Amino acid sequence: MFSRSHRRLNLLTGEHVLVSPQRTQRPWQGKVEARPSDTRPAYDPACYLCAGNARAGGHRNPDYVSTFVFTNDFAALSPHGASAEAHSENELLVADSESGTCRVVCFSPRHDLSLPEFSVSEIDAVLRTWTEETRSLGADPGIRSVLVFENKGELMGCSNPHPHSQIWANEHLPTEMVKELGRQEAYFAKHGRPLLMDYLAQEREKGDRIVLENDAWVALVPFWAMWPYETLVLPKRPVRTLLDLDDAMRLALADLLKRLTTRYDNLFGVSFPYSMGFHQAPFDDGDHPEWVLHLHFYPPLLRGATVKKFMVGYEMLGMPGRDITPETAAAALRELPDLHYKQWQP
Amino acid sequence: MFSRSHRRLNLLTGEHVLVSPQRTQRPWQGKVEARPSDTRPAYDPACYLCAGNARAGGHRNPDYVSTFVFTNDFAALSPHGASAEAHSENELLVADSESGTCRVVCFSPRHDLSLPEFSVSEIDAVLRTWTEETRSLGADPGIRSVLVFENKGELMGCSNPHPHSQIWANEHLPTEMVKELGRQEAYFAKHGRPLLMDYLAQEREKGDRIVLENDAWVALVPFWAMWPYETLVLPKRPVRTLLDLDDAMRLALADLLKRLTTRYDNLFGVSFPYSMGFHQAPFDDGDHPEWVLHLHFYPPLLRGATVKKFMVGYEMLGMPGRDITPETAAAALRELPDLHYKQWQP
Ligand SMILES: O=P(O)(O)O[C@H]1O[C@H](CO)[C@@H](O)[C@H](O)[C@H]1O
Ligand SMILES: O=P(O)(O)O[C@H]1O[C@H](CO)[C@@H](O)[C@H](O)[C@H]1O
Repeated sequence: MFSRSHRRLNLLTGEHVLVSPQRTQRPWQGKVEARPSDTRPAYDPACYLCAGNARAGGHRNPDYVSTFVFTNDFAALSPHGASAEAHSENELLVADSESGTCRVVCFSPRHDLSLPEFSVSEIDAVLRTWTEETRSLGADPGIRSVLVFENKGELMGCSNPHPHSQIWANEHLPTEMVKELGRQEAYFAKHGRPLLMDYLAQEREKGDRIVLENDAWVALVPFWAMWPYETLVLPKRPVRTLLDLDDAMRLALADLLKRLTTRYDNLFGVSFPYSMGFHQAPFDDGDHPEWVLHLHFYPPLLRGATVKKFMVGYEMLGMPGRDITPETAAAALRELPDLHYKQWQP
Repeated sequence: MFSRSHRRLNLLTGEHVLVSPQRTQRPWQGKVEARPSDTRPAYDPACYLCAGNARAGGHRNPDYVSTFVFTNDFAALSPHGASAEAHSENELLVADSESGTCRVVCFSPRHDLSLPEFSVSEIDAVLRTWTEETRSLGADPGIRSVLVFENKGELMGCSNPHPHSQIWANEHLPTEMVKELGRQEAYFAKHGRPLLMDYLAQEREKGDRIVLENDAWVALVPFWAMWPYETLVLPKRPVRTLLDLDDAMRLALADLLKRLTTRYDNLFGVSFPYSMGFHQAPFDDGDHPEWVLHLHFYPPLLRGATVKKFMVGYEMLGMPGRDITPETAAAALRELPDLHYKQWQP
């Protein structure tokens, strides 16, 4: 089954992905990326995220020892009030103000490590920091969306290898969240159960797209994944935002994140680039019984450390496409060890 | 005006783009791309698109002298019938068959040239070929969408520098077309005029996003452009597909394409990478009075030949974002000469 081209429906966006399993034989003669160098010092005097160093605009980082948060010196979102630039002349040129805050969250003073190389309790500390930032940002009545995300690797446009993530919190729900809200609301209205809980039950029954799980969380390659090794992390019971996690559930998420990112690194023996982020329920007056907190991992690599998938041409103008099936990708990730390749014995 | 963050509505998709003009001061310390080498022979014995050479799977190209079309040896779409893999087990795992054809259209036997370096009549020959292919593919009752596009440059995942484009024709309208159809239909139902004609009139009145125009066509940076130097090419009178162009209008499009791609190359003095493509009205029973044929150019470069815009992190998980405004980008392109930089006198 699934040996010919077909399309699959993304339940969260209502959009399709083209799957072309017959195309995996295609030889690649295009761009080959440089293998990223992976030897960084524990402290880099030139890094603007290392403890004690100077940043842009005359700021200096404290001598932090665990996580460290600051507002982006070149924030893409202007603070509230400053940006009262609503400007809809007519139906054809439609603009709105979009205010908010962009924060940077450093995981640790260690310049040389990345997520899978931290201990579970260090990852738990990052999760606590994300949660506290979500709490304060989400309490602002001018903020409706709090998006916690990490860009990792040069290939993903990450401009600094120091382990860090970002939080962009803003006035309106961004497009991808609007789509997910509409789809989850419609399903809940029809069935009285959250879409992602029913979807997870189905996937656990099937099994062939599951990558790994623990007591509280599951990582799987969604049926509609567009990136070759895309995964979706789902909670086993319906929580809506990071604020809903108790200590045990948060620690379990730290465990799952360590194991999942370790497998990514192990897949090609390289620190695996990706964008990942949490989709939390909107911070508004609603209860959002339809919404289930989830994390998307969007990694660009296709075949080995140096060949990435390009979402171009037909994908930009038509719809996203993939060659290897989600089932094949899940099997590959599932079979990898939980021990990081840097610790394998020669 | 527009000095602070705001969002703009894409009329064709109904989605937003975040514009952060205050962010253009951001220093770039991330990935710097290699400057593509730009000295290719007129004929390359190792190129599978050059005339007379062998392709994959035992095929050999004829000694073509103008354009040359063949079916992709590794097509992402399986032929009709072969792919009867409809598979919607339930509401949660939804798949459909998606059949069709992928063709490759070589512009010329000359391995060393790209679109702006061809003469207007050579570009016109490419347009004629695209039109003939559209005619035969669009006549197939199993085909609803005929997408003519070009990926140019290593940065865009183009695996062969020989000047060529692709045509993917398939069973269902792809996602981006579905969005554009819905928006154009809704506007037409309300106003009795095509959305893109009213939008063009508005832009010609304003002038600040126009890049260039001739008797029959206009190139502009759309109000909602997401890529730094994205452009939209629109006809001055409403045509729906390439089949509606008369000789004069097609020749005028060849002229406009030569001048537009020349300006792209002149912007940073480099053969400018992009994905471009035509959105033609659906090939079905409808008349599509709402639809206006248009071309999108999606180029990735941001600052110079070696720094590209990464659509990652917030963009993947939230909404696309840009720093320089569409008005600034349009002004930069507008001021460039029509003569290709390779022909400038030293
Ligand atoms: O068909 P090509 O040029 O080998 O491949 C390129 O274009 C395709 C269609 O836009 C994309 O799916 C591929 O990711 C890209 O590398
Ligand atoms: O903020 P950074 O890491 O400098 O920049 C990176 O992430 C941003 C948010 O996802 C993107 O808009 C940029 O294109 C990318 O280079």
